[in-house]
Amino acid sequence: MLITEFKLYENREDVTLTAYVLAEKGELRGQGLRPAVLICPGGGYFNCSDREAEPVALAFAAMGYHAFVLRYSTYMEGAEGFADLFSDLKVKEHLTHPAPVREIGMAMLLIRRHAKDWMVDMDRVAVCGFSAGAHNTSMYGVYWDKPLITDFLGVEKEAIRPAALVLGYTLSDYIFLRDFERNELDEAFFRNSVKVFTGEAQPSEEKLIEISPARLVSAQTPPTFLWATAADAMVPVQHSLRMAHALADHHVPFELHVFEEGDHGMSVATQASSVAKSQMNADAAKWVGLADVWLKKRFALDLPEKTAFEEASHPCL
Amino acid sequence: MLITEFKLYENREDVTLTAYVLAEKGELRGQGLRPAVLICPGGGYFNCSDREAEPVALAFAAMGYHAFVLRYSTYMEGAEGFADLFSDLKVKEHLTHPAPVREIGMAMLLIRRHAKDWMVDMDRVAVCGFSAGAHNTSMYGVYWDKPLITDFLGVEKEAIRPAALVLGYTLSDYIFLRDFERNELDEAFFRNSVKVFTGEAQPSEEKLIEISPARLVSAQTPPTFLWATAADAMVPVQHSLRMAHALADHHVPFELHVFEEGDHGMSVATQASSVAKSQMNADAAKWVGLADVWLKKRFALDLPEKTAFEEASHPCL
Repeated sequence: MLITEFKLYENREDVTLTAYVLAEKGELRGQGLRPAVLICPGGGYFNCSDREAEPVALAFAAMGYHAFVLRYSTYMEGAEGFADLFSDLKVKEHLTHPAPVREIGMAMLLIRRHAKDWMVDMDRVAVCGFSAGAHNTSMYGVYWDKPLITDFLGVEKEAIRPAALVLGYTLSDYIFLRDFERNELDEAFFRNSVKVFTGEAQPSEEKLIEISPARLVSAQTPPTFLWATAADAMVPVQHSLRMAHALADHHVPFELHVFEEGDHGMSVATQASSVAKSQMNADAAKWVGLADVWLKKRFALDLPEKTAFEEASHPCL
Repeated sequence: MLITEFKLYENREDVTLTAYVLAEKGELRGQGLRPAVLICPGGGYFNCSDREAEPVALAFAAMGYHAFVLRYSTYMEGAEGFADLFSDLKVKEHLTHPAPVREIGMAMLLIRRHAKDWMVDMDRVAVCGFSAGAHNTSMYGVYWDKPLITDFLGVEKEAIRPAALVLGYTLSDYIFLRDFERNELDEAFFRNSVKVFTGEAQPSEEKLIEISPARLVSAQTPPTFLWATAADAMVPVQHSLRMAHALADHHVPFELHVFEEGDHGMSVATQASSVAKSQMNADAAKWVGLADVWLKKRFALDLPEKTAFEEASHPCL
C-alpha cells in the first residue's frame, strides 16, 4: 500500500487528502481497476477526528477498496485542542459553507488526476462520512451536480459524480436541529458549530434549509447506506431517519441500519478506533460488514472465474 | 499508518520485514502499547505470495493490531515467475532450513528494537502464516526457545517469545506428506519444495521429523488458532488436524475452524486478496473475525471505561 498526503490548497496545511492506495505493485495489481471510498471524518465542523479517519480507511482497504481521507475546512484549521464553546467564537469566512462541500469535489478531481497510476475505477467512488463529516458527505450527495460545485470547479458534473454515499450517524436537518431540546454543553456545541459553519450566529430559515440534505434530496442523489445508533445522545437518530425518508420519497436506493446501543461517534466501534471501552460495541461494529455487502452489489471487482494456474495447469481443479 | 520496509540481511534484497505501524501520531496514539501480528505468506518455500501478504496485514491493521509482513528465504529469492518444477532444481544452501525459521526470530528482534517508537506490546506479538508460511510459523512455535534459534541469535528466549500462532491451511507433517498420494504436478511441486527447503533430494525419516511441527509440539508451544478448508486439494486438511491433535495432547490452548469449501490458498478469501472468483468464499472469509475474537481474549487493549470528555464534562452521559 502506498500512503501519500496531498494539500488541497497550496498555501494551507489544514485541508489534505491522504491516499491509501492498494496493490501499487505485485500480483494483486493484476486485479485491475478498483473502487474507492473517500472518507470525511466528523468533528462538528470544529476539527476532523482521527478516530474517524485512518481506522475507517483501513477498514475499507482491508475489504479491497482504495481509501482516501479528506480533512476538509474546519474551525480549528488542524490545530490541537478544541474551541472554547462558551466564548464568542469569531467567524473565519474561508472555512464556512460551501468550502467543505466544494473540497469533496476538489478531492474527487485530485483522485481522477491520479486514477490511471493508482488504478482507481472513477465510476465507483463512494463518499463516506461520520457526524458532521456525514453531513458534508450528504451535502455533496445533493449538491455534486449543482453550479455551487461544478461552476466553482469548472467541470462537467460527470467528472465528480459520487457512485454512493455511506453516512454514519449523520446530521441531516438544521431546522430539526434548531428546534431540538438539549443540555447546556450540547447547546453551546451546536450554537457554535452552526455559527462557524454558516458564518452567521442566527441564520435564517432559508439558510438552514440550504444546508439540510434531508430537505434537498432528488433523483440525482446517489444510492446511500446509512447507519446510526438509537442511543445517540448528541445527534439524535431522527437525522438519519429523516434522510432515509427523503431517499425513500425520491426512490433513491438506500439501506439503513439503526443499532439500539452506542453513543455518538462510534466510528468502527472496535478497539481500532476507540480510546475508551464506551466507544466499542460488537453490535454497532457490524455496520462495516453490512456496508461491505451493500457496496459489493455495485462495487464488486470484475474477476475471472478461475486463476490462470487453475485454467492452464492444475488438472485436479 | 507508517509503512516501512527493512532488509534483514544488509547484502540481500529478498528477505524483508514490512512494518504497518498504526497511530504513529494523532489521538489514537493515546491508546498506548498495542499488540502486533507478524505475517509469513505462503508459497511452498519457492516464493512469498503477495496475496497472503498485504491483504492479511491490512485485515489485522483494520482490527487494531500493528502488522508486519516477513518475506523469509525462499528459492526464487524475490525474483518474478516460478521455478520449473520438472527440471532438476539446484539446492541453494543459504536458503534451506533453518534459515526461514531463524528469520522469524530476527524479525522479532527487529520489532523489539523499535518497540518503544512504534508502541508495540512485545508480550503480545502473534505470528501468523499460510501454507508453507504457516509451516514456518509453526516451526517457530516449536523451535523459538531452542538453541537452533536462541544460540544463533545470541539472545535469551524471552526476548523472542511468540504470544500466539495463527495458522492458515498449514503443512505440519512431512512423513504424512511423503506418503500422501497426489497428482503429477503436485508431486513435482512437493518433491522440489522438500528439496529446496531441506537441501536434500531424499531426506531421511529423522530429518523429516525434525521439520514436522505436529511431531514437535510441547508445553512451550504458544496458544494457536488454526483454520483450513476440507476441500483443499493441495495441502490436505489432515495437516491442520494433526497439528490440532498434538496441541490437544500437550494441553496447549487452541482453536480450530475447518470450512467445508474452498481450495488451497484462500488468504482472506475476499476480493481484497483474490485474482479470481475461485479464491473468494464468504464462509471461509469468516476466519478473520473468528481469529480476531480469539486473539482479543489475550490481546485486548487496556482502555479506560469512559473517555476524558465523558468523565469530565458531558453531564448527559
